[in-house]
Amino acid sequence: MAEKKRRAGEDELISIIRSSINATSGNVVAGIGDDTAVLKLPKGDCELLFTADMLIEGTHFSTAWSSPYQVGWKAVAANVSDIASMGGRPMSAVVSVGIREKNRETVAKHLAEGIAAAARKYGVDIVGGDTVRAEKMTVNVAMTGQVAKGRAIMRIGAKPGDIIFVTGCCGDSAAGLAILNKKGKNDLNRIEKLLTDRHLAPEPSLEAGLAAAASSVVTAMMDLSDGLATDLPRLAERSGAGAVLRIGNLPVSSELWQWSGAAGEDSCEYAFAGGEDFNLLMTAPPQGASMLQNLMAAAGIQLTAVGEIVEGRELKVINKNEKISDWPDKGFRHF
Amino acid sequence: MAEKKRRAGEDELISIIRSSINATSGNVVAGIGDDTAVLKLPKGDCELLFTADMLIEGTHFSTAWSSPYQVGWKAVAANVSDIASMGGRPMSAVVSVGIREKNRETVAKHLAEGIAAAARKYGVDIVGGDTVRAEKMTVNVAMTGQVAKGRAIMRIGAKPGDIIFVTGCCGDSAAGLAILNKKGKNDLNRIEKLLTDRHLAPEPSLEAGLAAAASSVVTAMMDLSDGLATDLPRLAERSGAGAVLRIGNLPVSSELWQWSGAAGEDSCEYAFAGGEDFNLLMTAPPQGASMLQNLMAAAGIQLTAVGEIVEGRELKVINKNEKISDWPDKGFRHF
Repeated sequence: MAEKKRRAGEDELISIIRSSINATSGNVVAGIGDDTAVLKLPKGDCELLFTADMLIEGTHFSTAWSSPYQVGWKAVAANVSDIASMGGRPMSAVVSVGIREKNRETVAKHLAEGIAAAARKYGVDIVGGDTVRAEKMTVNVAMTGQVAKGRAIMRIGAKPGDIIFVTGCCGDSAAGLAILNKKGKNDLNRIEKLLTDRHLAPEPSLEAGLAAAASSVVTAMMDLSDGLATDLPRLAERSGAGAVLRIGNLPVSSELWQWSGAAGEDSCEYAFAGGEDFNLLMTAPPQGASMLQNLMAAAGIQLTAVGEIVEGRELKVINKNEKISDWPDKGFRHF
Repeated sequence: MAEKKRRAGEDELISIIRSSINATSGNVVAGIGDDTAVLKLPKGDCELLFTADMLIEGTHFSTAWSSPYQVGWKAVAANVSDIASMGGRPMSAVVSVGIREKNRETVAKHLAEGIAAAARKYGVDIVGGDTVRAEKMTVNVAMTGQVAKGRAIMRIGAKPGDIIFVTGCCGDSAAGLAILNKKGKNDLNRIEKLLTDRHLAPEPSLEAGLAAAASSVVTAMMDLSDGLATDLPRLAERSGAGAVLRIGNLPVSSELWQWSGAAGEDSCEYAFAGGEDFNLLMTAPPQGASMLQNLMAAAGIQLTAVGEIVEGRELKVINKNEKISDWPDKGFRHF
């Protein structure tokens, strides 16, 4: 009987997940429940975007403060951010979930609810996936998106003289993580709670990516998943150029400003090196800059000029005191 | 310095993987190296197939006998099998890889080579993914495929009176796993080696799936990833029907026959309950059966009639002695 119960588990687990996740768009011919999903192709003159992100307990999150709901949300959000950073619109996703035997129904249900909430918010159909047993909670989301033919904005394309922009504010997520590492998730004040929420349930910059694509002046773009310190060198390298970043220009939220002041921390440090803000980093020539800024402002998106693409391959920062120095070796990488 | 070396690792790892994997088809506008891949859409009147499979060390394989190359191969093969089981043709895949810090360059290289070999064999472009640190080796492959509009063969669709067919031989992979569990991978005789290879480096039934789609008579289809004992009930349930399976008709390879005879094992047991053969299970009405068999024979594919779809929801087996009995509760499930 125990054996029978154990073995019936996989199909039950799939139906628990299915009941939380219902792909509702007209693009889904067949969703969860078959060997693969069957999807209508985007109409017209489009190209397909395709990406994946894997979150593993212990590497990307701690169950001490991330709920299964938040892990599910973040796994979807990270992929939406990748699609957004190409100037595209997300379409569908398949989700692979590895969880422990213990409490698996409850964990699967909460994970699925977080996945479903983010999918609803960003217009993604969850159309299939895999459920497996794992010692460490593991969530992989693979997502497709669409973009008008030839209009995907890549990391390649930044030219010397282009202005470097970031959307939103930098460093909040890293500050949130620092707070969680120090204090855990209980007994936080209002500011600390806001910052930790930005780490645990980040919001990708989908509208900003679409606005960048609509502007037709953005030469290169990527999302800030590992932080400016790591990601700007990647964009510059792929574009075969150098970059100068003005540390003093980095946009810092009032919450990060207040918290860092009270905690004796340097907000610029967080804004420069902190990962997982899911803002967009983009470049545009000076003659396109004001148009881009107007377009973003009209969409209610904060856009800040933070530096310039330069000839050669050198990376430099200009500190607050106008001193030019070499690129500090900071930022988050997985190895 | 150690810090610097550690942190340079992720981008290096990606370039190791990139150098083994080169998406070569003309469908790839931008592959590995940007936030997402950019792909041309399939031409004409097609639908998109989309699936994912996750393999985790300890749950799906043991590093004691699966090499990283074989794990990579199998992760791709499992997804090709899912696409094949819809009657489709695979197109592109994104691969998420979780590995330990220790020996990560070597492990990543061998994993990537296995992934690349399977991708080449089955015509899949590897176009992106994610590399993360993990205590247990974890490989998730998400794959897209294409199928002519309205022609995907699902699990729904089997009708009472339809004949149940399987391609290839059943039980080899499970026998291979039993051998590995008992003896490990060394000192195997020729037969044992063949059976363990079928477990470690399975070959999906892509040609058989395409032939089934071309026949236009197959009413329902799925791949045998968890074994007939588990998978036929799933197909019957989704089709709202029952099934009768003739155990004596199950196709058994000469290798399984020889090994089971020598080892005092029951080959039927393996053929019925054993998973991961990646054969196809399909149903077709009696009037289409000979056409289907001719088509498969012309493609060099073994096709065996093993039972019948029946009215109602009951599942029965007919044993070798023609005795009808209830469905034995066997087969592999993950929970």
